[in-house]
Amino acid sequence: MSARIVLATRNTHKVGELRRILADAQLDVEVLDLAAYPDVPDVPETGVTFAENALLKAHAVARATGLPAVADDSGLCVDVLGGAPGVFSARWAGRHGDDLANLDLLLAQLSDVGEDHRGAHFACAAVLALPDGTDRVAEGRMHGRLIREALGANGFGYDPIFVPDGERRTSAQLTPAEKDAISHRGVAFRALVGHVRELV
Amino acid sequence: MSARIVLATRNTHKVGELRRILADAQLDVEVLDLAAYPDVPDVPETGVTFAENALLKAHAVARATGLPAVADDSGLCVDVLGGAPGVFSARWAGRHGDDLANLDLLLAQLSDVGEDHRGAHFACAAVLALPDGTDRVAEGRMHGRLIREALGANGFGYDPIFVPDGERRTSAQLTPAEKDAISHRGVAFRALVGHVRELV
Repeated sequence: MSARIVLATRNTHKVGELRRILADAQLDVEVLDLAAYPDVPDVPETGVTFAENALLKAHAVARATGLPAVADDSGLCVDVLGGAPGVFSARWAGRHGDDLANLDLLLAQLSDVGEDHRGAHFACAAVLALPDGTDRVAEGRMHGRLIREALGANGFGYDPIFVPDGERRTSAQLTPAEKDAISHRGVAFRALVGHVRELV
Repeated sequence: MSARIVLATRNTHKVGELRRILADAQLDVEVLDLAAYPDVPDVPETGVTFAENALLKAHAVARATGLPAVADDSGLCVDVLGGAPGVFSARWAGRHGDDLANLDLLLAQLSDVGEDHRGAHFACAAVLALPDGTDRVAEGRMHGRLIREALGANGFGYDPIFVPDGERRTSAQLTPAEKDAISHRGVAFRALVGHVRELV
């Protein structure tokens, strides 16, 4: 019987991305998600860094399930906003998870900002937490710039307004495989896979 | 006849504060405001620092009126947001000058942020621009922390949720004179007054 890990997120977009990335790594691991654990309570994201929030989520789920748990926290860091929205990316418009409202607000905030100042990066902290309380952290970034209107139907969050360096398309216009190859989450989780192999 | 300067703002709250601060300095200067110059166009605040925006506004008004012009740009810099809203303070909710929407949005964004991470400061860049194209810049800050609900009816902008260091009241609960004595705008404009005395 293969080892099992559980993905510590209820975000179906993230579950999909994490399953793809872990599948590519060809781990001999069964990947569960929180759909199998409806009683695990949501963890308030009270951290002020991506790593803090990912550690909070992964350890809470490892404790609650008794299984190694994998979590990520990620967000968009806008140069001219000093790195904000950052850990507040998913609640930028004030309510958690309203992607369209978050994206519209950011476009409006930056409407007067010229082309020279529209740099940004996505950042991801990926965590593997074990039931014994230990953990491993890996981080990834994807640099690029923000455009003025949403383009593309793939991806989620701020993907439709983010053009990665070296690309002419937004993250939401890339195929899933193209996005995984360069994305903050892809980079972080491929770095984490080595730890999963060792420890699970 | 005394010299004349013009305040390069249409924000009536700012006109009031600047007139108070300049009156306290007992300059022998007649202070006009843009109400006397309805044809001076609004200047887009395309800068990414307070000083850049204040310079843009002051020089535009000095050119348009032929008089020495005084401008400020100021905003709230939240530690956990990496200094944002910053120059975007007045348009944080996406529309310029909707104080209540801006404040409500910031409270919602920070709703999960604990007491240890609610530090912030107000910053102001004050500029005197002369019709010959020269200028002087002065800056001021007021440090403090953000509370979770709006308190007080004085002041404007984010004053009702900001408690200055050493105070138990919000900036909006201070009297105008108490606020001027410690505020970012008071500090910056008192520093600028020396230049006004020299140059006007």
